Amino acid sequence: MANNLLAGKKGIIFGALNNQSIAWKTAEACYANGAQIVLTNAPIALRMGEINGLAEQCGNAPVIAADVTNNEDLQNLLQKSMEHFGGKIDFILHSVGMSVNIRKGNHYTGLNHEFQHKTLDISALSLHRLCQTAYNMDAMNDWGSIVALTYIAAQRVFPDYNEMADAKALLESITRSFGYHFGKKNKVRINSISQSPTRTTAGSGVKGFDGFMSFAEKMSPLGNASAEDCANYCVTMFSDLTRMVTMQNLFHDGGFSFTGVTAEVIEQMEK
Amino acid sequence: MANNLLAGKKGIIFGALNNQSIAWKTAEACYANGAQIVLTNAPIALRMGEINGLAEQCGNAPVIAADVTNNEDLQNLLQKSMEHFGGKIDFILHSVGMSVNIRKGNHYTGLNHEFQHKTLDISALSLHRLCQTAYNMDAMNDWGSIVALTYIAAQRVFPDYNEMADAKALLESITRSFGYHFGKKNKVRINSISQSPTRTTAGSGVKGFDGFMSFAEKMSPLGNASAEDCANYCVTMFSDLTRMVTMQNLFHDGGFSFTGVTAEVIEQMEK
Amino acid sequence: MANNLLAGKKGIIFGALNNQSIAWKTAEACYANGAQIVLTNAPIALRMGEINGLAEQCGNAPVIAADVTNNEDLQNLLQKSMEHFGGKIDFILHSVGMSVNIRKGNHYTGLNHEFQHKTLDISALSLHRLCQTAYNMDAMNDWGSIVALTYIAAQRVFPDYNEMADAKALLESITRSFGYHFGKKNKVRINSISQSPTRTTAGSGVKGFDGFMSFAEKMSPLGNASAEDCANYCVTMFSDLTRMVTMQNLFHDGGFSFTGVTAEVIEQMEK
Amino acid sequence: MANNLLAGKKGIIFGALNNQSIAWKTAEACYANGAQIVLTNAPIALRMGEINGLAEQCGNAPVIAADVTNNEDLQNLLQKSMEHFGGKIDFILHSVGMSVNIRKGNHYTGLNHEFQHKTLDISALSLHRLCQTAYNMDAMNDWGSIVALTYIAAQRVFPDYNEMADAKALLESITRSFGYHFGKKNKVRINSISQSPTRTTAGSGVKGFDGFMSFAEKMSPLGNASAEDCANYCVTMFSDLTRMVTMQNLFHDGGFSFTGVTAEVIEQMEK
Repeated sequence: MANNLLAGKKGIIFGALNNQSIAWKTAEACYANGAQIVLTNAPIALRMGEINGLAEQCGNAPVIAADVTNNEDLQNLLQKSMEHFGGKIDFILHSVGMSVNIRKGNHYTGLNHEFQHKTLDISALSLHRLCQTAYNMDAMNDWGSIVALTYIAAQRVFPDYNEMADAKALLESITRSFGYHFGKKNKVRINSISQSPTRTTAGSGVKGFDGFMSFAEKMSPLGNASAEDCANYCVTMFSDLTRMVTMQNLFHDGGFSFTGVTAEVIEQMEK
Repeated sequence: MANNLLAGKKGIIFGALNNQSIAWKTAEACYANGAQIVLTNAPIALRMGEINGLAEQCGNAPVIAADVTNNEDLQNLLQKSMEHFGGKIDFILHSVGMSVNIRKGNHYTGLNHEFQHKTLDISALSLHRLCQTAYNMDAMNDWGSIVALTYIAAQRVFPDYNEMADAKALLESITRSFGYHFGKKNKVRINSISQSPTRTTAGSGVKGFDGFMSFAEKMSPLGNASAEDCANYCVTMFSDLTRMVTMQNLFHDGGFSFTGVTAEVIEQMEK
Repeated sequence: MANNLLAGKKGIIFGALNNQSIAWKTAEACYANGAQIVLTNAPIALRMGEINGLAEQCGNAPVIAADVTNNEDLQNLLQKSMEHFGGKIDFILHSVGMSVNIRKGNHYTGLNHEFQHKTLDISALSLHRLCQTAYNMDAMNDWGSIVALTYIAAQRVFPDYNEMADAKALLESITRSFGYHFGKKNKVRINSISQSPTRTTAGSGVKGFDGFMSFAEKMSPLGNASAEDCANYCVTMFSDLTRMVTMQNLFHDGGFSFTGVTAEVIEQMEK
Repeated sequence: MANNLLAGKKGIIFGALNNQSIAWKTAEACYANGAQIVLTNAPIALRMGEINGLAEQCGNAPVIAADVTNNEDLQNLLQKSMEHFGGKIDFILHSVGMSVNIRKGNHYTGLNHEFQHKTLDISALSLHRLCQTAYNMDAMNDWGSIVALTYIAAQRVFPDYNEMADAKALLESITRSFGYHFGKKNKVRINSISQSPTRTTAGSGVKGFDGFMSFAEKMSPLGNASAEDCANYCVTMFSDLTRMVTMQNLFHDGGFSFTGVTAEVIEQMEK
């Protein structure tokens, strides 16, 4: 859907790995709505090269590598983006997360705590680093909008989501904490979107993902939200129509978050 | 702001009393975004006549009286609206509330329970009646959107808000409960928007409103959200960009809901 | 368990229908912990006579009939209780609820709104009436404690719970609202306990209760909490050990409320 | 208050620095209620020696040094405790937190991220390490209870609380996540208690603490909860009366958490 809702706006999209990614769809949706964008990802992720296709599609958007755990990289990203845009930034999508312990196959009751720090660094503190860098460089336009993607495991336990649940809880807290300060300074608002489980490369890494997708589908009155739906929702959050929404965690999940049980699940339980 | 976000959509707006009302601003914003609308209010409220000016502004929108505590009135409203639109309804704004005990000057610890039932009937059960009528008449298009306005007193005590707090808690519960069923049947989504205190005719009736507005302003990193801001937010919720958001209570309050205290409030406490 | 935790305290227990009732177990637990009690229920419920056995067990506790929708009955109950105790009241258990629409077999999308008012009157406004009567009669000792039983359907949709979900949301709001005022006046605290589904006479009335009990059991890391467990928890809430807990909704559910999914449920979904 | 509620139970208390500490009061209350205890703190904190007086008071409780960021120390603590008790552990109080950035005077928008990791390690991951060590050593009795102290800044922004807000959000998430697994394995329950601001050595380190204490006092219908009150509440959570409460964050704050504003605060705003 394209209504030119972001006409004249300039934004940075983190985490567009391939055309399954929510970030990929969001980049497309923002561009279709009149925004200029810069794409970024970790150097290793960029090496796959798929992102160049997206960049072309989005008016030859620059692709700038940045390791989110590195302050200099973030500074460089913001600097280069402002040079490219010829001005400050209006919106940012933070779609970044990685669990080292899950990759290593460690159960939640057998975590390696060095890995856990790495997970938190990449998946949560990265948002703080990014905001802090932007705040101190004065890189955001007034009423700018930052969105971080999260998951309801931050509120309730989904055992296979493992240490990422804690990382997302930390991420959401940073959303609130930094939202306060960036709001005070520049009216910049920071929110998280808590999305349905989505069959992306990241999502697929989680054990038992299929059974889980099917549970979520059955537990959501509208079914699971797709990556495209999420991209559209991000567009509204980047637009001026939502200027007074900040420090919120917004569930985008077809009603999953406020459904205790459905007829379909009860039926399945009786089998 | 007008991006034609609601092109082709048809909606009903409850509660546009005068040009301070959130509902009034929402009607304007929806119309500006390409929607056709029908206006409605209680017969007694329509008698003031101000709404006719709004109707003219909105492409000669029909104004249909409806007592929200009367099932026949609601049925008539939906029937007439569908006839006017030549089709089903895409969105509804429920902006309805009245506390009989507050009007009578009764303290929360001295409520008249007959009045309390009346308050609940008008302010909360009206949403159930409306949804039930629409559900059974099959009056909503698939993926339609219903929004009810609420206030954070449903979650935390603001003593002067009195029995309306309980009415809003009931309203929000109905949002979830009916959201489930209408989602299952027609993918219709139902959400509430929890708005900053707003200097409307309804808001001004609350005792100590000025001290309270100033507290809310000081406690919100972005300040209080205005009626215009709220209207814009409603537009996003009626649009197809938020199709997977349902059964939520969405805070639209400049960050008030997730702020525990601000420097300004602490300063004031030290006086 | 009996540790004399309520030695010297005097309380009123609503809703002990038979020996399955949470209220019944709570009366026993309070008495075993040194409290004196008064039992009450609706006149029609008392006619069954089972409660007399409980009264005997609890040191010949008086049984006083009271229709919770009738202010005079509540006034009489409090008056008589104070006469019996020779002093004010320390704690009250509100275990009262009834859905007229469920009894009549009405679906949530086909409610009779007269019945709905009746349901709200009995199940939620009864707490307001009770608190208001006690507040104005000055019937509670300072630091007294009032507990109302509720269910998580107030937060998330469990479709078969029907209109009772909305009644419980209203009840919980009254807990907060009145908790504020009674706290200010007499340090009386008011909380709700959100209990696991329990196989009581009230619980069994809900359609599909068995499938639902089994779902809740599988979704709770500790399993469902029993009526006895709930009685013990009530004892702590009536004791002086929890004096600063007020206006809370306390989940007593083996972890259900913060569990998104369990291995057992996923397994069942894969069948 | 002493009702022998913890007769026969054995527990470990972290963080009793001096007789202002919540942990100190909790150790006293547990001992008075019949429990045997072991005291622990960081080696540097023990050097002050005050804890020895507490140990004497509590039946010559052993004092075992443990750095909570060191797995071997935690293993040693649990091992030695079990040897002392001649059996497994029934309860643990986690009262541990330290913000390196606050000590260094860094604002939330100017955090040093190395320090932030240290803060998270001490204040939040310490709970995971502790639970993981106990889980894998099989050190807890069935139905054991672990309580971590937290603060409402995990939910809402209190700007001076700085990075500790994020640490507490992480801590609470670990409470839920590990609560699931420990509940499944041993029925061990894990909860956090979200306590009023308390004039302890830790609390006093926060900037503007006095203005803040006074705000919290004015915003709590029952006033701020004291350290003694918190100790009593911990006793209930360690007792068998609360066996089915797990994965919860329990507000112990005189009603602060569900109060939006009070007459006193409004009055102050009008000055």
